[in-house]
Amino acid sequence: MAVNLTIPAQSDIHAVQGVQIGIASAGIRKAGNKDLTVFTFVPNTSIAGVFTTNRFKAAPVQVCEAHLATESDVRALVINTGNANAGTGEPGLADANQTCNELAKLLHLRPAQILPFSTGVILEPLPMPKLLAALPAAVSDLQDNNWFNAAHSIMTTDTQPKLHSQQLNLANKTITITGISKGAGMIRPNMATMLGFLATDVGIAPELLQDMTREIANKSFNRITIDGDTSTNDSFIIAATGQSGLHIDSVASPHYTPVFNALREAAIDLAQKIVRDGEGATKFMTITVEAARSSEEARKVAYSIAHSPLVKTAFYASDPNLGRILAAIGYAGVHDLDVNLIRLWLGDVLVAIDGGRNPDYLEADGKRVMEQSEILVRVSLGRGEHTETVYTCDFSHDYVSINADYRS
Amino acid sequence: MAVNLTIPAQSDIHAVQGVQIGIASAGIRKAGNKDLTVFTFVPNTSIAGVFTTNRFKAAPVQVCEAHLATESDVRALVINTGNANAGTGEPGLADANQTCNELAKLLHLRPAQILPFSTGVILEPLPMPKLLAALPAAVSDLQDNNWFNAAHSIMTTDTQPKLHSQQLNLANKTITITGISKGAGMIRPNMATMLGFLATDVGIAPELLQDMTREIANKSFNRITIDGDTSTNDSFIIAATGQSGLHIDSVASPHYTPVFNALREAAIDLAQKIVRDGEGATKFMTITVEAARSSEEARKVAYSIAHSPLVKTAFYASDPNLGRILAAIGYAGVHDLDVNLIRLWLGDVLVAIDGGRNPDYLEADGKRVMEQSEILVRVSLGRGEHTETVYTCDFSHDYVSINADYRS
Repeated sequence: MAVNLTIPAQSDIHAVQGVQIGIASAGIRKAGNKDLTVFTFVPNTSIAGVFTTNRFKAAPVQVCEAHLATESDVRALVINTGNANAGTGEPGLADANQTCNELAKLLHLRPAQILPFSTGVILEPLPMPKLLAALPAAVSDLQDNNWFNAAHSIMTTDTQPKLHSQQLNLANKTITITGISKGAGMIRPNMATMLGFLATDVGIAPELLQDMTREIANKSFNRITIDGDTSTNDSFIIAATGQSGLHIDSVASPHYTPVFNALREAAIDLAQKIVRDGEGATKFMTITVEAARSSEEARKVAYSIAHSPLVKTAFYASDPNLGRILAAIGYAGVHDLDVNLIRLWLGDVLVAIDGGRNPDYLEADGKRVMEQSEILVRVSLGRGEHTETVYTCDFSHDYVSINADYRS
Repeated sequence: MAVNLTIPAQSDIHAVQGVQIGIASAGIRKAGNKDLTVFTFVPNTSIAGVFTTNRFKAAPVQVCEAHLATESDVRALVINTGNANAGTGEPGLADANQTCNELAKLLHLRPAQILPFSTGVILEPLPMPKLLAALPAAVSDLQDNNWFNAAHSIMTTDTQPKLHSQQLNLANKTITITGISKGAGMIRPNMATMLGFLATDVGIAPELLQDMTREIANKSFNRITIDGDTSTNDSFIIAATGQSGLHIDSVASPHYTPVFNALREAAIDLAQKIVRDGEGATKFMTITVEAARSSEEARKVAYSIAHSPLVKTAFYASDPNLGRILAAIGYAGVHDLDVNLIRLWLGDVLVAIDGGRNPDYLEADGKRVMEQSEILVRVSLGRGEHTETVYTCDFSHDYVSINADYRS
């Protein structure tokens, strides 16, 4: 039961010239599941990625980083769900490499031209015979506009597919940006059991694309949190095929800003969709912390609020128990915070001021905001110029049910 | 439904000579509730305390710290439940001070000789007329062995009273240690909506008692976590009346170690009882992290496991989904952690080794341990000599129910 998550009609999903997608059933976790997805890109596509900071980095993440570091002509992605190939040690690495080797043979590429991705249960060996047996079917299925099916085939505990597609006109050319993502537990910055794949037919110089990908991740996929758990497998990829004929070589390019903004908008939409479909979510919350001394300080306070189980259960209950938000601000680890300077708004309602409750605050006003499905929590720390925003959801009975039952 | 929480029989609670306790109904939250407790101490009692590090420090905590800093002869405590007097700004401070003033008149003391404590809802003004009207009844009720009733009167969402009482013989004297505590949400180190009051009839030099209190808190109340929320009101007090005739002036005293150990044991028991009665808890987990380079690093990893909603829901489900524990170790923020050196045990079962699953691990063995109500999670980081232990509980549907309904 996702929160205001819109699924575009299949007819509104624009293919990205230079990208093909094929899907197959490997039956990794359940027989018959469409759980294997292959992307291919035309030559001269730029590919950039950002990955989890978890020290138990999954095997496919390690292989992705190695391939991106050494290979300038990445040409395919292979994604399985049902098993994360994480916490699997050396055998797991061998499995991720073998997956690339076998797909390379089918696509007539070098193994390093392939990036592998896995999502699902941790600490269990990848069932390689099933996965390898399904690769030819995925390759046979490669086609130009398969995004809608791919959004389904990368789902794990997601209840809805997550897609974004837009076109804009630049320099008399129609350019396309299309992407998909998946959540839905173990979500927090840097990054999550979260996969995001975004492609455009704009051409973007490889190093520039890497900078853009990092910057965009820091305003989108790295600013969402469901349960504070940073997964072992999180990956976000942007591919730029250049097939539209529009090319960007530097930030000085006249088309840099509109392309950057459109990619960022797409990434924020795909990231927010992960939160909207957060495990058990019934509400979508935007937490904005303003007037902080640094971005880091603003983030600390925003995440402290966004991770508090007490805050999240109060939102679930539509209970304006706002003292829990003040408590979360207070323990965020900003040691010289002057609580008398803090202001707290819930939507448009000023709740706290001068270290306590706003004398004009009426509980009915708080309750009115808390009953909405989209809630803005705004905090001013009153001590600087920096602002950060994170997106999160509430904490419901269903979160516990989903996570207590995940493997059964 | 607390986890293996034993309540001593009322007849097994030993009075502490020099301490009296009185209880009354102020009706702060609900009419008829026993919600107001007064402790008094004989002259020359040493009193030491440690308090929350939350920047939204509640008004009573601010007053406690001010009184302890300026007054060497603290002689009484006053504790209300139902309202935390936190996030209440200057009016809240005035209320806490007025409480001390009025009790001081009744007890013929100076206001600074009184320490006030509040626990309950944040951000709502303390109903002073009700509280002040009940003070005389609490004073009239002062009696030598009222610990059992006091353990009840300080409860909020606690389902069980928490008491510890023991006697030991030292230097041909029987000395007594008795204490009470309360939880049960917003619990994590430094500190929690947690109150702990411990008294002994040993005499302890005031500065020594302050050092002992801090050290004991760091092995007990500062090592428990239920939901990661550090409250605004947490306070832990040790009072040493000296009435047994046994006195300790320094760590060199021959009786220092047995008294310190007994006080620590009492504090650990009272702290663990808070976890055992954690909101919605069905299991009690001890998380021990060994072979860390520093205590801080060991704590980081232990809390990362103890705070992970995914780990906590897996324990609730008795599901040996141990990859979630590895993921929590990996995102604990130890940036140069070598996952290949990590070993993970669940009870006596070696689960992970060499960066992945122990080849000899059987899921049935993990399941057997997970089904127990007391579970030891032991992690060796393989890089140093430091060990830390934290105590926590699982995360159940009832946690959500309790916190979604707390104010209704």
